[in-house]
Amino acid sequence: MPDQPIRFDLPQSAIPTHWYNVQPDLPRPLPPVLHPGTKQPVGPADLSPLFPMALIGQEVSQEQRIEIPDEVREIYKLWRPTPLLRARRLEKALDTPAKIYYKYEGVSPSGSHKLNTAAPQAYYNKAEGVQGLTTETGAGQWGTALSQACTFFGLECVVYMVKVSYQQKPYRRVMMQTFGSTVYASPSENTNAGRSILAQHPDSTGSLGIAISEAVEAAATSGGKYKYALGSVLNHVLMHQTVIGQEALQQLEMTGDYPDVVVGCVGGGSNFAGIGLTFVHEKLKKGKNVRIVAVEPAACPSLTRGRYAYDFGDTAGMAPLVKMYTLGAQFVPPPFHAGGLRYHGMASIVCELYDQGIIEAVSVPQLDTFDAALRFAKSEGIIPAPEPSHAIAQVIREALDAREKGEARTILFNLCGHGHFDMAAYEAYLGGRLENYEYPQEDIDAAMASLPIIEA
Amino acid sequence: MPDQPIRFDLPQSAIPTHWYNVQPDLPRPLPPVLHPGTKQPVGPADLSPLFPMALIGQEVSQEQRIEIPDEVREIYKLWRPTPLLRARRLEKALDTPAKIYYKYEGVSPSGSHKLNTAAPQAYYNKAEGVQGLTTETGAGQWGTALSQACTFFGLECVVYMVKVSYQQKPYRRVMMQTFGSTVYASPSENTNAGRSILAQHPDSTGSLGIAISEAVEAAATSGGKYKYALGSVLNHVLMHQTVIGQEALQQLEMTGDYPDVVVGCVGGGSNFAGIGLTFVHEKLKKGKNVRIVAVEPAACPSLTRGRYAYDFGDTAGMAPLVKMYTLGAQFVPPPFHAGGLRYHGMASIVCELYDQGIIEAVSVPQLDTFDAALRFAKSEGIIPAPEPSHAIAQVIREALDAREKGEARTILFNLCGHGHFDMAAYEAYLGGRLENYEYPQEDIDAAMASLPIIEA
Repeated sequence: MPDQPIRFDLPQSAIPTHWYNVQPDLPRPLPPVLHPGTKQPVGPADLSPLFPMALIGQEVSQEQRIEIPDEVREIYKLWRPTPLLRARRLEKALDTPAKIYYKYEGVSPSGSHKLNTAAPQAYYNKAEGVQGLTTETGAGQWGTALSQACTFFGLECVVYMVKVSYQQKPYRRVMMQTFGSTVYASPSENTNAGRSILAQHPDSTGSLGIAISEAVEAAATSGGKYKYALGSVLNHVLMHQTVIGQEALQQLEMTGDYPDVVVGCVGGGSNFAGIGLTFVHEKLKKGKNVRIVAVEPAACPSLTRGRYAYDFGDTAGMAPLVKMYTLGAQFVPPPFHAGGLRYHGMASIVCELYDQGIIEAVSVPQLDTFDAALRFAKSEGIIPAPEPSHAIAQVIREALDAREKGEARTILFNLCGHGHFDMAAYEAYLGGRLENYEYPQEDIDAAMASLPIIEA
Repeated sequence: MPDQPIRFDLPQSAIPTHWYNVQPDLPRPLPPVLHPGTKQPVGPADLSPLFPMALIGQEVSQEQRIEIPDEVREIYKLWRPTPLLRARRLEKALDTPAKIYYKYEGVSPSGSHKLNTAAPQAYYNKAEGVQGLTTETGAGQWGTALSQACTFFGLECVVYMVKVSYQQKPYRRVMMQTFGSTVYASPSENTNAGRSILAQHPDSTGSLGIAISEAVEAAATSGGKYKYALGSVLNHVLMHQTVIGQEALQQLEMTGDYPDVVVGCVGGGSNFAGIGLTFVHEKLKKGKNVRIVAVEPAACPSLTRGRYAYDFGDTAGMAPLVKMYTLGAQFVPPPFHAGGLRYHGMASIVCELYDQGIIEAVSVPQLDTFDAALRFAKSEGIIPAPEPSHAIAQVIREALDAREKGEARTILFNLCGHGHFDMAAYEAYLGGRLENYEYPQEDIDAAMASLPIIEA
């Protein structure tokens, strides 16, 4: 048996020194973000109750490279650079000529890529004298990451956790509490937004949109004591994740291969952007011929079946209006297990890239994602979270397509987290208790009827 | 801020090519293992219903180095070499002059060091035409690792899981099932051993000793279809773990430091041996001045309060008799959370090293281990399993002692697994619902009254 490398490691000195900001490389500027009340473009003053000035600056920056503070790189060293692995055993199991590489972000102490942005967000807030952060979490990966980051930088952390997850995933809650966070089931009695939902729907199991409304309100009404942190969607959040793609590019150079296709799952867009934006730059600025594919759940198909329009980021209409592919802020996705992908909208950057034809998007049904996850686990050993299992399902499609066409094809995907806190979902799948969710078009149309009408 | 390295990575080419066998380095030969019926030394023929000949050979080998098969090294590449990290943030939190290094085995796909031996055990069984393996598991780390290894090599896997863990840790069970294993709650109705226990104690929640009896019986009565695999205690199992210490020694060379003290938790002895035996060799054969400390739970203190005597490895008296520090095969430890350390005996190799004064042993109470775990998690980000939290508690004692004495001290310990499947224990600790367990000496004496009397 030849001694074939499987893992491609970089030294800690190779951790990127700068984040990559895609905004100056875009064919046209991002559409402005609008104030939810006035529907006029927001300025820094509008955002300052929620975010520190450093992050507001990053949100609109046109600099292509933004330096990573030393204090943040010190935190990154706890797990970065993350490994790039070649899935040789999966390739063999699929009998494909394709080469499959994956960047594994599950080695982070929080178990996912989310700590890449949680650390700088905590750092910048601490640097501006904020006492604590509020946030929402669905599946719990973001809440865990922010809890850890707040511990590292000595900040308080208050998490509004979607009630159904709070009940079904108690261990994610305990993990946040282990790091000292206060965790509330959302909708809660703590906020006007929560009380208003509970008055109408006392049995509400919550949603990401509701939890965002609560966390935003808790920060905005704290008199400056707390600010708010979001785990995806925003430009600066996606930018922080570009350490993933920058490292992957260096690691691929070690292999001698270059990807024909780069795959990531999308919910809010942050892990997809993390692996993908580096290759958007390669494609737009270096003329590389690379396909970049966003994979979303068939049960929450904002890119493939939504409308590119202004919409609220949250349910209560407190968050700014963003132009994005959306299913409507009132859309409540069915209870499929990839909680991190259950968002009605999508990051503005991802939407603009898709609208411009620079990236592709596909959707996959839930059962395909678990089938793919099991194949991957049995070959590679790692049990993936349900979110990246969407990417894996598409990778398998690509690998089988390459086999059918007899093509060499190099595939890179982002394995953004492990599934150690998702075993209940695997149990349901193994027990035959999961299903796919499909929508008739009239249901999608009805959900989008709530979109606010914005004069361009 | 200086750019200080935190992680010391080796290339995959540095994965050891041989396991280190401590037996020829011991001051005197290990006491013979005795047949449970005849009480005479066992030979290969006695063991062949349970183990493949290759492993029986390793069990008694006097070769100092045994080559790792290529097929096993290919599996090791999925996660090895594991990182060595310096806990700079913990050092700072403790305000200690000590340097604290840890080898992190939780990056394995099974989440612990157990896959280091599961892979070769599955390999050798497959090579000798065995169809499947039976085993027991307590906390589930070993069962998970063997399930994965069996998947990799195309073997069936049947796991007898201690009933209390089967009920309290359903996600570990699901993880094993995800890899295709059959998992039974032990005591079960499948075996004479299980039925006999259930007849006397219908509500038995099981023990590792009972589960071993069931797994051994299931293999021994399968007509050669199944053999049996054990996750600790045996000489070949400890030897497979020496990849840990060998890598750590290479990595410490990168740091320029040499350990004054090496720390590992002990239950059956495998992770302690994994980090420690390399340094036993350094001490005995290279004259290095290094302390090697085994840390056991105060609630299951076989080394520090047990007797060095022949005892059965299992409850039913079907497993061979081994001379070891033991609390008696009928000893049932209280329900503390480090399930992997709830064993009445100890590996023969560890016992002999302790009896010869080559290694030290200490015990720590449960609450200290969780206090240490929280300190570690908040500094280093990783939530440790309850087992290595015993090692961490001792590391903190050493670091504080170094501070008190104003001594430089380099500490190395083995962080043998993460605590992602132990969050219920953390929840109990955070909720103030955990306690320490101490024994009056007469209880220890009573437990040891069951020891079989062996003429030397």
